Amino acid sequence: MKRNVIVGQSGGPTAVINASLYGVVYEALNREDACGTVYGMINGIEGFLNDQIMDMEPLEQSGKLELIRTTPGSFLGSCRYKLPEDLGDEVYPKLFEKFAQYGIGYFFYIGGNDSMDTVSKLSRYAEQIGSDIRFIGIPKTIDNDLVHTDHTPGFGSAAKYVASTVREIALDASVYDNKKSVTIVEIMGRHAGWLTAASVLARKFEGDNPVLVYLPETAFDPEKFLGDVRAALEKVPNLVVCISEGINDGQGTFICELASSVGVDTFGHKMLTGSGKYLENLVKEKIGVKVRSVELNVLQRCSSAMLSGTDQKEAIASGAYGVKCAIEGATGKMVAFRRLPGEDYRTDYVLEDVNAICNQEKTVPAEWITKDGSDVGREFTAYALPLIQGEVKVPSENGLPLFAYR
Amino acid sequence: MKRNVIVGQSGGPTAVINASLYGVVYEALNREDACGTVYGMINGIEGFLNDQIMDMEPLEQSGKLELIRTTPGSFLGSCRYKLPEDLGDEVYPKLFEKFAQYGIGYFFYIGGNDSMDTVSKLSRYAEQIGSDIRFIGIPKTIDNDLVHTDHTPGFGSAAKYVASTVREIALDASVYDNKKSVTIVEIMGRHAGWLTAASVLARKFEGDNPVLVYLPETAFDPEKFLGDVRAALEKVPNLVVCISEGINDGQGTFICELASSVGVDTFGHKMLTGSGKYLENLVKEKIGVKVRSVELNVLQRCSSAMLSGTDQKEAIASGAYGVKCAIEGATGKMVAFRRLPGEDYRTDYVLEDVNAICNQEKTVPAEWITKDGSDVGREFTAYALPLIQGEVKVPSENGLPLFAYR
Repeated sequence: MKRNVIVGQSGGPTAVINASLYGVVYEALNREDACGTVYGMINGIEGFLNDQIMDMEPLEQSGKLELIRTTPGSFLGSCRYKLPEDLGDEVYPKLFEKFAQYGIGYFFYIGGNDSMDTVSKLSRYAEQIGSDIRFIGIPKTIDNDLVHTDHTPGFGSAAKYVASTVREIALDASVYDNKKSVTIVEIMGRHAGWLTAASVLARKFEGDNPVLVYLPETAFDPEKFLGDVRAALEKVPNLVVCISEGINDGQGTFICELASSVGVDTFGHKMLTGSGKYLENLVKEKIGVKVRSVELNVLQRCSSAMLSGTDQKEAIASGAYGVKCAIEGATGKMVAFRRLPGEDYRTDYVLEDVNAICNQEKTVPAEWITKDGSDVGREFTAYALPLIQGEVKVPSENGLPLFAYR
Repeated sequence: MKRNVIVGQSGGPTAVINASLYGVVYEALNREDACGTVYGMINGIEGFLNDQIMDMEPLEQSGKLELIRTTPGSFLGSCRYKLPEDLGDEVYPKLFEKFAQYGIGYFFYIGGNDSMDTVSKLSRYAEQIGSDIRFIGIPKTIDNDLVHTDHTPGFGSAAKYVASTVREIALDASVYDNKKSVTIVEIMGRHAGWLTAASVLARKFEGDNPVLVYLPETAFDPEKFLGDVRAALEKVPNLVVCISEGINDGQGTFICELASSVGVDTFGHKMLTGSGKYLENLVKEKIGVKVRSVELNVLQRCSSAMLSGTDQKEAIASGAYGVKCAIEGATGKMVAFRRLPGEDYRTDYVLEDVNAICNQEKTVPAEWITKDGSDVGREFTAYALPLIQGEVKVPSENGLPLFAYR
């Protein structure tokens, strides 16, 4: 019996979240044996509650489906809507009435921790009421902080962007190499430093920039930082320092909070800004050399210029794998990656229990961070390098990248 | 008679300043009839005063010369050294003694306004003392603010980066399109808004983002800005606003000065930062929607990901043209571009008097800016679009761009 499909995107966008969407939609459209109409939710579960859905099949004829593979951002729109903890809340029967109304049998949600929380709650509620709708999470986050998976689609492209951009910033910073200078690059990552760690891939030799790298996993001490900078300037006149936006004192205070007040987003996450700016002013005042801070900001998650071929391929494959597993009966699972042993990089796609994944955060292992907390070791490079391999040609028109829009 | 060649780079780097260097060096090495040793100055005229020079010929054998065509930053290093106004200063005979010592007959300086000032002073001093060394300026600046030339190498690639990045930021900003938001993008340009204007190339249709664009050429009124934003939010829920770092009140006060203190660089230019941040806080306080500011910072001048094929080709050709003209006897000139009439984009390379160029700034014509000062007209698009055409493949290694280093 054919069952209709619905797919949504949630949380912050990445360069390949639409590649995952492509994987889900392409596979579902090609499984005519099992899948009926393939719907997209506009603005995730929040939009679905307001009946904002679209039929995805026409995208194939219009050529948009091909184009979304290289379009950054969330083609379907996103939301930051958290379902109530109480499965007795009235929103659940309302949602399942809508699923029935649209004949939904397969539900796919592409996102990070918070999105997996949605998959977890919906699958648990389905079990309670004996619904046979299958709920599958497709992983996505530039932060690479999902547990029970080797890595996450979106990280590879963001890491490639960070590494190549830091290499370019180091070139830019070195043009006045007869004068000392410090350039501080602020990289996304509240609690997990994976993306900041990826900046070390920019190095071409031992001791090359970025010389100092600070992750949120290690307590940050501004006085020790100043000592590190002073010492590094003796060896490298144009110093590049990479910091995570979430560097903190190890006791819950973000470094940026030392400078300014912070807001809170709808999930209760502190909204960060300004660690780089704070340290820029600190270096200016205490060391007195020329100093600049660069915040990579949203560019690290929305640039199509540095798509990793590996990342894009895996994003598509994880979406398609989710569809295959759902048809075979899986529910309450997230698609995960298992790295196979051996010299060459290879991964298997597997399913993991979404309840064990949601609301957890995988941080960079302490043993991968150097003892003094200002660098990562070779383990990280070996881990991350395969994920940034391969280039993707983005279609262009009139000198600019051509993207798909709803 | 063969004469030795020296070439230097000065001022801020661009994505194609090394393409111009390639043009000079490649042409000089191939003009064995006229040119002897080809030297590069390390850190411009300042390094040359300390005998910091290198022989460029070995770069050809090592393959570095090919690679510098796609390497951003200043391969030779740069300086911000201003020669004294008084041609009677002792630095002039000192420099010309060094020229004699190295057998220099041809001097090429790749840079913007301040670098042309150096070419102007050296050529005027040469005339005073009857030296036959030929001094030629090769234009370079992302700001596109040199007079007596249709445009400047470096602008096309920076414009392509700005337009494609703003298009990506607009995609990123629109993922929560069920909530209103404002994204402010701050783009380089102290007094000339060419690069900020290039953000309009990101639009795909009339009324698309960036909806509002503010250049330093027009007096900026924060109250009017808030009115513009409020009105635009009625039509476009996720508004993208592009501003030049140099927006000002029309009476000499930069908008960023309303927020914080500013420094001054060695040329007496005010060092700007923070107009975007200032307006972010203003919108947050007065309008209350979600707001973010993104400073493109050095990325717009150092990214190799968005090299314009046209820009790179012209940068190389302008360097080579300078060598050709110097050999034919020209001095005290800058290579300039003249756009030829007709539907297809074509340019001629010509020479202009460097004395008429240095220390001048070409701003965006008032008649190209809309009356209300929040947009540019079709004249700008027609002007800029040919300059961002063509893609350049950057060599890569291990997943990252491969660059040349001294």
